[in-house]
Amino acid sequence: MRRVAVIGVGVTKFGKHDRTSAELFAAAAADAITDAGIAPSAIQALYFGNVTGGETERQLHMGPLAATLLGLPTVPTTRFENACATSHVAFRHAVMEIASGVSDVVLVGGAERVLNVPTESATEFFAYCSDASLEQPAGLTFPGVFALIARAHMDKYGTTEEQMAHVAVKNHRHGVLNPKAQFQKEISLETVLKSAYVADPLKLFDCCPFTDGGAALVLASEEVARRHRHPIWVLGTHAATDTMFVHEKRDLSRVTATERAALGAYRQAGKTPTDVDVVELHDCFTIAEIVATEGLGFFEPGTGGLAAEKGWTSLGGKLPVNPSGGLKAKGHPIGATGAAQIAEIVTQLRGEADRRQVDGARTGLTHTLGGNTATVVVSLFGRD
Amino acid sequence: MRRVAVIGVGVTKFGKHDRTSAELFAAAAADAITDAGIAPSAIQALYFGNVTGGETERQLHMGPLAATLLGLPTVPTTRFENACATSHVAFRHAVMEIASGVSDVVLVGGAERVLNVPTESATEFFAYCSDASLEQPAGLTFPGVFALIARAHMDKYGTTEEQMAHVAVKNHRHGVLNPKAQFQKEISLETVLKSAYVADPLKLFDCCPFTDGGAALVLASEEVARRHRHPIWVLGTHAATDTMFVHEKRDLSRVTATERAALGAYRQAGKTPTDVDVVELHDCFTIAEIVATEGLGFFEPGTGGLAAEKGWTSLGGKLPVNPSGGLKAKGHPIGATGAAQIAEIVTQLRGEADRRQVDGARTGLTHTLGGNTATVVVSLFGRD
Repeated sequence: MRRVAVIGVGVTKFGKHDRTSAELFAAAAADAITDAGIAPSAIQALYFGNVTGGETERQLHMGPLAATLLGLPTVPTTRFENACATSHVAFRHAVMEIASGVSDVVLVGGAERVLNVPTESATEFFAYCSDASLEQPAGLTFPGVFALIARAHMDKYGTTEEQMAHVAVKNHRHGVLNPKAQFQKEISLETVLKSAYVADPLKLFDCCPFTDGGAALVLASEEVARRHRHPIWVLGTHAATDTMFVHEKRDLSRVTATERAALGAYRQAGKTPTDVDVVELHDCFTIAEIVATEGLGFFEPGTGGLAAEKGWTSLGGKLPVNPSGGLKAKGHPIGATGAAQIAEIVTQLRGEADRRQVDGARTGLTHTLGGNTATVVVSLFGRD
Repeated sequence: MRRVAVIGVGVTKFGKHDRTSAELFAAAAADAITDAGIAPSAIQALYFGNVTGGETERQLHMGPLAATLLGLPTVPTTRFENACATSHVAFRHAVMEIASGVSDVVLVGGAERVLNVPTESATEFFAYCSDASLEQPAGLTFPGVFALIARAHMDKYGTTEEQMAHVAVKNHRHGVLNPKAQFQKEISLETVLKSAYVADPLKLFDCCPFTDGGAALVLASEEVARRHRHPIWVLGTHAATDTMFVHEKRDLSRVTATERAALGAYRQAGKTPTDVDVVELHDCFTIAEIVATEGLGFFEPGTGGLAAEKGWTSLGGKLPVNPSGGLKAKGHPIGATGAAQIAEIVTQLRGEADRRQVDGARTGLTHTLGGNTATVVVSLFGRD
């Protein structure tokens, strides 16, 4: 199969917007096309991710709408939806389209808009990503699921609420350095620990916010990418699924889909966890970051909390995690998140991340999780 | 790229069901796996299509749910949504996964369930596939869009309401021969012409019904397919997009996305319209079949109505169209439709279509349209 590179990235400011999801995507896509330095007419396919547009905007079939708004109404367009992993899933399929030789230049990304509906509606719509037959009627929303995961991790390994709070403090500190982040304000350990419980043991500041935003990437074949000033290569991308039902998961302290997706991506890339210099991973809740750093092979099972506490995952630490601020501080427009994570890693590997730059980063990893840990995609990227 | 074949097909009865979309898909998928004669563990990826599950079942992230219900919870799974073209779009991407060498065996299909909500809600949810900014507020539902298309075709070419009625009569006659069809009852020209106007000039019997149902296909690489009793080869598959906005379309008597998708598929297959022996195409309204038979190159522009009137598209005619009964009589579970059309063509090319068999069919075509003619996929199939 052919090599694939990311040659353009674009991300809107994350936060509250008065634009539709399709408009947010189009704005990010225009930036990505400009960044790539290509003619819009060079784009041969559009891979678009969105989750709740039917619920929040009464808009399905959003792919062709995004293409139309972008001025590319005839480009073959597909909408993807895999809960919060949506645009990372779309990215993986877009890589396949180029790798297979079908296309040379593909635009991929996503957008989400939820701050136009009341918070309780947004919570409800997000819960549609859980099983509707048993789990939704039981009231198992996402904070509840990740509270179960947190409790299992605490019981098994002694992980503490303070360790989880360190993740929030670190990601807010990083977010200050990212002008696109929803929150650009440091918070103290005390602020996190004194915030109200949302789902015990998770408190308000353990949770990522609701966010509007869009993100886009231009992918290219090697032949096209070689003409770009700074192509960032896709070294590997792998997806894994796990049972939809929380009650069927054998060990809530682990996310087995993360472990399997990582294994596939490392194998494809010919890399190991020690090769990775910078990571953007799915910290929808602080415990999610801790479990992910273990599942991705960076720290032994049960030591992810210690890693956060010791600052190993901070900018300047041994493995900076979520220099963008992560979902926690940068924000989490669910249909855009995967593409935004990739945009950050590309920016880091280009050496263009300004005050949040991880010095000398040559290999980066992105990890995105969907639903009750039922979809995970992991990708690895490298520079020349 | 590698050759790809369909080696298994499964379709539920179309009509009213008390099962969820994911359950309907799982039932169809189990049949497709049995038909393929493979071990379920051979499946390496799941491509799943659904449109309105968020609205009708409060269920998003339906891919992993379908995989879980099917007993394949760890297979990488993606949900696709492109309005009524959803599972044909999913099919095209699944073909790419095998063609690229990533996988050898992929399960693809879709499901929809709408008869659990009131008809006015179903109409509203389907309209979400139109633009929410201008067209929905104007009340432009799908019957209205296709009424505009019908009027344009009548004005330009003299197509008559009677010619459109012939499409309905023919597809109902075919539906009688299909035990899976929602309607298995002949109707007369008079019944169609005397039915109530839904959106002038379209009457009740010019419209396809709301339908619950699921459809699934097992795709395989050439190496795997050669071991199957009767592989049906994917000769070409192409997607095209058009502007989302009806007011931007230059000529409503044509569907340019159909013309472009067909051109791409014919070119890829090295075939012309005269090579095609049997067709399953998107007759969501009778006028849609007439316009599609022209756009696919079977009849000159403006003569699609005459072709229906003369019986050229009937079983026994020069080019049988929709031997399954089409969306009109077989039914239209929108997330399943594309996969169900492909299942019919595979059955025809195997020579296993029983009383609706097109004698000696060697080359077949499927055509699926999404939204306000904004997404079209055309695929060509052949037997050894």
